[in-house]
Amino acid sequence: MEGKVWKFGDDVDTDAVIPGRFLVLNTPEELAAHAFEGVRPDFAESVKENDIIVAGSNFGCGSSREHAPLALKGTKIGCVIAKSFARIFFRNAINIGVPLLECADTDSIDENDKLKVDISTGVIENLSKGEKYQATPLPDFVREIVNAGGLIEYTRKIID
Amino acid sequence: MEGKVWKFGDDVDTDAVIPGRFLVLNTPEELAAHAFEGVRPDFAESVKENDIIVAGSNFGCGSSREHAPLALKGTKIGCVIAKSFARIFFRNAINIGVPLLECADTDSIDENDKLKVDISTGVIENLSKGEKYQATPLPDFVREIVNAGGLIEYTRKIID
Repeated sequence: MEGKVWKFGDDVDTDAVIPGRFLVLNTPEELAAHAFEGVRPDFAESVKENDIIVAGSNFGCGSSREHAPLALKGTKIGCVIAKSFARIFFRNAINIGVPLLECADTDSIDENDKLKVDISTGVIENLSKGEKYQATPLPDFVREIVNAGGLIEYTRKIID
Repeated sequence: MEGKVWKFGDDVDTDAVIPGRFLVLNTPEELAAHAFEGVRPDFAESVKENDIIVAGSNFGCGSSREHAPLALKGTKIGCVIAKSFARIFFRNAINIGVPLLECADTDSIDENDKLKVDISTGVIENLSKGEKYQATPLPDFVREIVNAGGLIEYTRKIID
């Protein structure tokens, strides 16, 4: 997967991802139209499929609302790469089918860098800088859930 | 005053202005180095004196910490223009000496637009678009507080 970087810092909370007043919306597509609306008003209209969110530590802290990963899913971003994720956000995102990667080197990645990411190996190539970083790859069974499109789809597949 | 626009949306909360973990810092300069660090990591290093923050409604909602207007003061921005401000933020900002203007037309203003702002009349010229907007000018006594550099300096002047 290749995409352009949207760079964030530490402690991006779920209210920044999707402002509280949009919790009345429920589909990924409706929510995606307002992703980061308060703090990065150009995000929702400019983000492209497979673009990559890169952040510091504790991404997804704050309210454990599922609307935040739902909104991210609706934007069709390729993945979120952060130094660390808030625990419940991580679980919600996996359950909903948003790929996440933990990587210690996100300080080396800048806004608009072009990345090539292999979710299965965790290898991140920074095509803009000619650098490579190693993220912690997701465990196989977690990746299967994400690839299936989330826990519900995954369970459906197993049952079928 | 002339400056470049940093555009935000509605409901920018004080935790976006200055992340909670920096509340141990107390001077405008120290706080300014981390302004919007989580959500706009390029802000603190790129913002220039007299740049202008333009936002939607309810700017400064959330925790009523004074650190948010202190951080903005430290960035030496020219003013904040928003459709509306959270009430306590408004009062804190005035007390601290950060000029605010309420203007209904902020949707017409985009990131990187160059604005010329007359705080005393509330006239905003958008030099990039050739447009003019009318903000609600601050009452004279409020503007005197802001011009003095905040309530403490203002009071000192009166006492002296």
